[in-house]
Amino acid sequence: MPRLSQPLLADLTATASALADAAAPETLRYFRADGLGADNKAAQGFDPVTEGDRAAERAMRAVLAQRRPQDAILGEEYGAQPGTSGLTWVLDPIDGTRAFLAGAPSWGTLIAVADADGPILGLIDQPYLRERFHGSPDGGWLDADSGRRALATRATSGLDRAILFTTFPEIGTTSERLAFERVRDRVQLTRYGLDCYAYALLAMGQIDLVIEAGLNAYDIQGPMAVVEAAGGIVTGWRGEPAHAGGRVIAAANRDLHAQALQLLADNG
Amino acid sequence: MPRLSQPLLADLTATASALADAAAPETLRYFRADGLGADNKAAQGFDPVTEGDRAAERAMRAVLAQRRPQDAILGEEYGAQPGTSGLTWVLDPIDGTRAFLAGAPSWGTLIAVADADGPILGLIDQPYLRERFHGSPDGGWLDADSGRRALATRATSGLDRAILFTTFPEIGTTSERLAFERVRDRVQLTRYGLDCYAYALLAMGQIDLVIEAGLNAYDIQGPMAVVEAAGGIVTGWRGEPAHAGGRVIAAANRDLHAQALQLLADNG
Repeated sequence: MPRLSQPLLADLTATASALADAAAPETLRYFRADGLGADNKAAQGFDPVTEGDRAAERAMRAVLAQRRPQDAILGEEYGAQPGTSGLTWVLDPIDGTRAFLAGAPSWGTLIAVADADGPILGLIDQPYLRERFHGSPDGGWLDADSGRRALATRATSGLDRAILFTTFPEIGTTSERLAFERVRDRVQLTRYGLDCYAYALLAMGQIDLVIEAGLNAYDIQGPMAVVEAAGGIVTGWRGEPAHAGGRVIAAANRDLHAQALQLLADNG
Repeated sequence: MPRLSQPLLADLTATASALADAAAPETLRYFRADGLGADNKAAQGFDPVTEGDRAAERAMRAVLAQRRPQDAILGEEYGAQPGTSGLTWVLDPIDGTRAFLAGAPSWGTLIAVADADGPILGLIDQPYLRERFHGSPDGGWLDADSGRRALATRATSGLDRAILFTTFPEIGTTSERLAFERVRDRVQLTRYGLDCYAYALLAMGQIDLVIEAGLNAYDIQGPMAVVEAAGGIVTGWRGEPAHAGGRVIAAANRDLHAQALQLLADNG
């Protein structure tokens, strides 16, 4: 990552929080609201898009139009908008729309600002829990009602003591599921269902691994900034850069990352 | 259920809340604490018991010794204590210990008071979220920072529009898993991982079905009181009483319950 000037870093950090502040009332307005409808935007299956998603992304784009009109935007709901600064804001107004629809507070608003090499800084915001997880060159921290605390991943060294999360047990294709299950069969505990909140738990030092497939750039860039700032490692399943999405593994430390990568790659 | 005098009902309701108030500081002291250890109390597998579990149950037993010494107690951590009143307090200090260990706020403190026919009233308390879900002959309600609101399950009539939750995809035995999957294959959306909080979402009218196996009495009596007070139905997989645990289905309404029972029973 190129060195950022301190004023620019401060402006990007403040802008990321301003985006989260703009999105929160829009998502919370629809969370657990009676009669929330979900359109079906997928050709098959169930891919709900709520008005909360769209309203929150519109609110964030309005903030960027005012504060950083020179930056590009890539958002889940309204696509790509070009810029001139070399920076792109990567926005997922509600990651975990299914959790959102079910009333479970494991969804989050994901915000990152990236250059060509990936996210420079980002955040995971969970406005119902009033928790905002930040990751930047200045470090990783959680802002909550109880105050600010530093984020740090933990030192678990053996897979047999690790806690693994993923969102749903089907994972992706059959071979992706089988690869996941090779890791699942070696860890102490596997849990499902948390969407982006699993990355927040990893950054807090509560869990050790998140393994997913089929992600988009906007699903991973915010979590990636947070986990990396907390000392964790986020790559593709072959160790390649993960900021474009696809198959992603996030690990608390290098040991676990290496052990899990080996199992994911094992075709024997 | 025999008719309860209004003073007795008021005392039981107040006692249930006093128990939750006593448990909360004990569980929260350990939630997301650094270095939380988990003993392995299961002969095989991973059944964590934390000091938070034990401290919270001790705190609740101390309240009962003072307020209702005549009642029996059945608690997850410290077993059964006889009484003389015909009433039993059924306590699970931390339902969802695995979620607790992982830092995910989907665990809860479960409290019910039962006679021989099952729970008379009960609650699901989530002290990190500051949400307490009550179910009693007076109805079902949620107390949260935003105030008190009535709980009511929803009227979803077709399985193809239903949201189903369970805690983990393995469910139980192979035949239990296959029975679950017959329902899973017919609903709109299946999600995993929420422990007792799934019953709270059902009582709030956010989801439609919870199907689990291998439950203990203390896993289900609090949620059962809450879901039934909100208009839902909780039985075993054959429609039998569920207050002793085992295979449990909770449904938002009679239609969904009947449709799901048929699929669970189908051996063809």
